Amino acid sequence: MLKLYGFAVSNYYNMVKLALLEKGVAFEEVPFFPGSAPQTLTISPRGKVPVLGVEQGFINETSVILEYIEQTQSGPKLLPTDPFERAQVLALAKEIELYIELPARALYSEAFFGMTVPEAIKTKARTELLEGIASLGRHGKFSPFVAGETLSLADIYFLYSVSLACAVGHKLFGLDLLADLPGAKALLEQLEQNPHVQKIAADKEAVMPQFLAWISSKK
Amino acid sequence: MLKLYGFAVSNYYNMVKLALLEKGVAFEEVPFFPGSAPQTLTISPRGKVPVLGVEQGFINETSVILEYIEQTQSGPKLLPTDPFERAQVLALAKEIELYIELPARALYSEAFFGMTVPEAIKTKARTELLEGIASLGRHGKFSPFVAGETLSLADIYFLYSVSLACAVGHKLFGLDLLADLPGAKALLEQLEQNPHVQKIAADKEAVMPQFLAWISSKK
Repeated sequence: MLKLYGFAVSNYYNMVKLALLEKGVAFEEVPFFPGSAPQTLTISPRGKVPVLGVEQGFINETSVILEYIEQTQSGPKLLPTDPFERAQVLALAKEIELYIELPARALYSEAFFGMTVPEAIKTKARTELLEGIASLGRHGKFSPFVAGETLSLADIYFLYSVSLACAVGHKLFGLDLLADLPGAKALLEQLEQNPHVQKIAADKEAVMPQFLAWISSKK
Repeated sequence: MLKLYGFAVSNYYNMVKLALLEKGVAFEEVPFFPGSAPQTLTISPRGKVPVLGVEQGFINETSVILEYIEQTQSGPKLLPTDPFERAQVLALAKEIELYIELPARALYSEAFFGMTVPEAIKTKARTELLEGIASLGRHGKFSPFVAGETLSLADIYFLYSVSLACAVGHKLFGLDLLADLPGAKALLEQLEQNPHVQKIAADKEAVMPQFLAWISSKK
């Protein structure tokens, strides 16, 4: 059985978890935290979460895990078969990761964990975040899903990156990042009604106290 | 015929160019610069380079373009067929992009173009760069290629990201990033002997004066 290493607060972990739940693939969750301990680095070369344990070994990097699952597991398709359409979904997912998730991530420690991010980093991340959202507005279809009429990997990135980016934008800059993207707002609301998404949210809530204690111990 | 939009100084552009040359795929180079002009954004949603023009439209994001080429074009394979081995190559490529290329990129303007990067960003990028190189040392095989015995997409990312990261490390921090990775050093030297790599380097040299003038006009 596939083993999903990570923890239920990680948005990247939850991307893979949602893909597995949507496909109806059996998997075991293995508690695993990021870091630089030697044992961690034998499982995840950069000490990141999530990792997928398969018969032949470990697979790291969320985008790679998601493509591996798509290639090897049955269940509803999350990538189109046509190469051009497939590329559009992968490009949207990548844009969300590089231009929305990553700049927002640079601000998580201040937005969520009471630490302070240097002003230069904050300024850079704010500019990038606004450009990333504008890019999503140009490339995303929201009809009703990010890349078209069916749920895809782009929606999974969207759900677990844009929701956090919006929280960051609101807390640190008083911005409503989706103000000009009603289709994106409607999609977020729709996705949040998905039973698998609700289960993942409940699992996250359940471990949140433990996670916050762990973060405090690292300060 | 495939159209490759971009310019010969971009390391991402050169990744795609090398893949096309290695595969022996015919393509036309279309001069295209990054930016936020409306015409640029209709071709590239985030205004980035490169973009691949195909019959159905445009494909953006280097990693997506490379997978599209792998899926649709003939010539030597740059990704293994086995899903697990394929995932290892894609993970190595992604690690190089996220943990080496991106932190190094945050420093390009100071290292190569005489601008100044805020100290907070420099400090963060230095730490990330060192961790990225250590991660590559753990996951890379260098036997002699990054992921094993044959050239793959991981080598293409390696060549065009790690060489620039090393230049950044040397110029800004006096660091030899590959000091502990003799296999990586040897591979860089080997790849630089590849005739396609040499052609790409010559094309880059030829347009460098024009590029530096363009950068100066933006300061």
